[in-house]
Order: sequence, then structure tokens, then C-alpha cells
Amino acid sequence: MTGKLSVVGLGPGNPHQLTPEAQEVVRTADDLFGYGPYLDRIPALPTQRRHASDNRQELQRAAEALKAATEGRIVAVVSGGDPGVFGMAAAVCEALENGPPEWRQVEVAIIPGVSAMLAVAARIGAPLGHDFCAISLSDNLKPWPVIEQRLELAATAGFVIALYNPISRARPWQLDRAFDKLRTVLPETTPVVFGRAAGRPDERIAVTRLSAARGSDADMATCIIVGSAETRLIERPGNTPLVYTPRGSSRPAA
Amino acid sequence: MTGKLSVVGLGPGNPHQLTPEAQEVVRTADDLFGYGPYLDRIPALPTQRRHASDNRQELQRAAEALKAATEGRIVAVVSGGDPGVFGMAAAVCEALENGPPEWRQVEVAIIPGVSAMLAVAARIGAPLGHDFCAISLSDNLKPWPVIEQRLELAATAGFVIALYNPISRARPWQLDRAFDKLRTVLPETTPVVFGRAAGRPDERIAVTRLSAARGSDADMATCIIVGSAETRLIERPGNTPLVYTPRGSSRPAA
Repeated sequence: MTGKLSVVGLGPGNPHQLTPEAQEVVRTADDLFGYGPYLDRIPALPTQRRHASDNRQELQRAAEALKAATEGRIVAVVSGGDPGVFGMAAAVCEALENGPPEWRQVEVAIIPGVSAMLAVAARIGAPLGHDFCAISLSDNLKPWPVIEQRLELAATAGFVIALYNPISRARPWQLDRAFDKLRTVLPETTPVVFGRAAGRPDERIAVTRLSAARGSDADMATCIIVGSAETRLIERPGNTPLVYTPRGSSRPAA
Repeated sequence: MTGKLSVVGLGPGNPHQLTPEAQEVVRTADDLFGYGPYLDRIPALPTQRRHASDNRQELQRAAEALKAATEGRIVAVVSGGDPGVFGMAAAVCEALENGPPEWRQVEVAIIPGVSAMLAVAARIGAPLGHDFCAISLSDNLKPWPVIEQRLELAATAGFVIALYNPISRARPWQLDRAFDKLRTVLPETTPVVFGRAAGRPDERIAVTRLSAARGSDADMATCIIVGSAETRLIERPGNTPLVYTPRGSSRPAA
């Protein structure tokens, strides 16, 4: 008897931004798997088992969740934001592909959520208003030169760039190197948004220019949005400024 | 007396994927502005005024909404998916920047939602599981050569590519040209996902390979996800296949 595994997006952390679908899947699960701080967002139910793990344990967590589902349990694996954007959905697929054949019989559902970049963008205007990309700065699973090359090509192409996993104790220099690389392509006046805990009581949103952007302004929970050459800042007397990228482009191809 | 303007993401169309925040903002607005089919998703309230307009009228709709808010009304401008991703948030910012100074006094809030690409990705696995980009194929507001250049740079950089606004009666050839351009860079076995109405009763999700992808498989409401060279397809006997992009990259920089 095979159970079911859902990978659930908890959104940015504000309960009003959690979808009813995600709330229901979490409420009706037998077993919850996830990074401790995400599990802590979910009201405890005496009938549910919780399996908290560290944020570097994605593959092992995915394997344990698949095993529980194979044994007939209704399992929810939780992610912050959207599980398909640098979240647990890819880890579950990876574990499933490399695991025993019976794991392929498990019913798998991915429950989308509001991703961090969408929540940060919403708090400042519309910086992702035109073509954009999302890049993880973590070089744990890919070589740093690949990341630098992607940054350069993305900026050259005119994409707005959302940076995930920008910095951590184990990766202290990567974000400053990324800003240095982007400064070789983009104007120094390019708006840069640092967003943390968007929509939550401890929210911090700051806007600066690429020339002044510093890695020390971020921590591992920050999502950074670097504008394209077309991204604009609207000053509003008595109001916070708005950052947006126009829907069109007047730029000729290089 | 100045009112308030909220730009609200209605999500992919399944009511269970609408956030409580978006539902509340829509319910408490005096005036609702939007493309007709999006307004049709919202239960009618006798106290609310509705202002439906065509899907090419974004700037005019934004200006009318800002004017109503300046007059003291509580206004909601609705978008499908997330309003910051090829939605109304950028149009409102653009109108505000170019409008009369009093529009800058309006309180503006952007209410994020689950975007189409996240909803489509969730229905097939985790195709956006690593670095990815989103590109609008509409050449109404940017020159076609810019789009072709972005496609080429994005594929070269190793991004998974989500294509928005892929085709319409007025733009019948652009999607096939985009596939042709991508075939010059990516392996012909690259998975391509066509997703329409994800999570709704009329949902259509199809997976093919880049060699077989045809523009005629899409319409204007389709979101297309073209994998990177690392995107994988997992066959599951008796189950639909899963498409995912591994969290890491073994690819050396070119």
C-alpha cells in the first residue's frame, strides 16, 4: 500500500500569503518533513509526526519522506516560498530518480507557493516587471566559474537578476564577487533591492545602487534583486520610493 | 483625500491557490479594474464597481485606477498569476511615473500571487529547480532581435527558460522562431513543457522534446518551460513522467 508525498510551498512566511491548498495539505498529513524553522511555522497537531532536519540535509530528508510514503503514510515535505524555486521539489525528484524502483510508484504532488523573489518585489514596486532570471549563488553544488559566467551573460542579456542563497558563514565572499562581476556590465546607478522576511513582522527591505551594494548588507535569508539597465526608481515625496522595470525595452540588440 | 490602490495577484485560477490576503483585498475594494476574464473569476458584490477592459489596455487601465484612488476610492487592479511577473504592477508604476504629481501621493500596495510558471512547473515536477529565467515573447513593446538575443544568451548560460505571451493571432510566428533559435544552442532531447490553465478543470499539461516542439501546440494562455541541458525526465511505469532540473550543475564554464 503506497501513500502519498506532497512537496508544499509555505510562501514567504506571512500566514495571509499561504494558499488554502498548502494549508490543507499540511493539516491533513500524517508526517511532516522539513528544515526546522519552516516546520516551526506550522501549528502542532497531536496526531502528526514531525521530522525536522538541518538545511543542508535536503537529499536525505527527501529519501526519508519517500520511504515513509512507500510505507503508506501521507507525507508533506515543506519548503519556504515555492518548493520548485531552489526548494525541496528538485531534491525529491533527484532522490526518487536515484532510489529503489518502488519509489516511482508513490503519488507525488507539488503544491506551489509565493516565492521569496515575488514577495520581495511586491514590497518595493515591480522590479521583476520585465524579463528576469533567478540565480543561486551557492557554490556547494556547482562550480563558482559557472555562476560568474551566468551573472555576466544574464546582465549582458538585459535580465533583471534575483539572487538566492547569497551568503552564509561557509560562503562569505561570493556575494561581493558577484557584485564586482555585475559592475563590469551594468551602470553603477542600477537599483539593487535587499529583501528579508518580506511581509513578516521582522521585514527588512532596502534599496541602494549597484555602486554601493555590499555583501555585508545581506544574510542567508536575504533575496537580492539587481535591476537591468532599464530598471527605474520613482521618488515619492513623503512616501517610500518605487522600483520598477518597464514592460517594454527600447534597447537595440548589441 | 487620497484612497488606496492595490495591484492583486489572483494566482493561476484555482481558488485554492488564491492567497487569503488577495481574497481580502479584492473583497474590500470599492472599485475593481482588470482584464474581463480575470474580473469574471471574482464573486460579484452589489457595492462594488467593476471596470473591465481589454488585455492590450494596461496603461490606460492603470491610469484610470490611479485617478480613482486619487479621488479617495479603495481600488484593486487585478492580474492573473503574480502581478509583478508580466502583470499589472509594472504598468501601474509606469503610469504613476508619467502621470500628474498627485498620483505619487497614492498609497500603492502590490499583493503577490502564485505565478503561472510556478503553477505549471508544480504540475510536472521541478523543471525550475535550478537557475532559470522568464522571457516574454511579445514584440509589441520590445524589438524582436532583443528577444532572440536573450534566448540565445539564456540558453548558453544554462538557464531553464519560461516563455510568457508565446503566441497570439497578431504574433503567429514568434514561438516557432524562438524554438529554432533555441535548437541552435540546446540538445534536441531537451524537455519542453507546455502548460495551460494549471490547477483548473480545463488544465492541459504536455511534455515533449525540443526537436518536436511546435508553436501550434500553444495558445496565448500557455506558459512554456524549456529545460536546460541538465533538465531530466523520469519515467514512472503507470504514472506520468516527472521533469526536473537537478539542484547542482556539473557543467564546467565554457
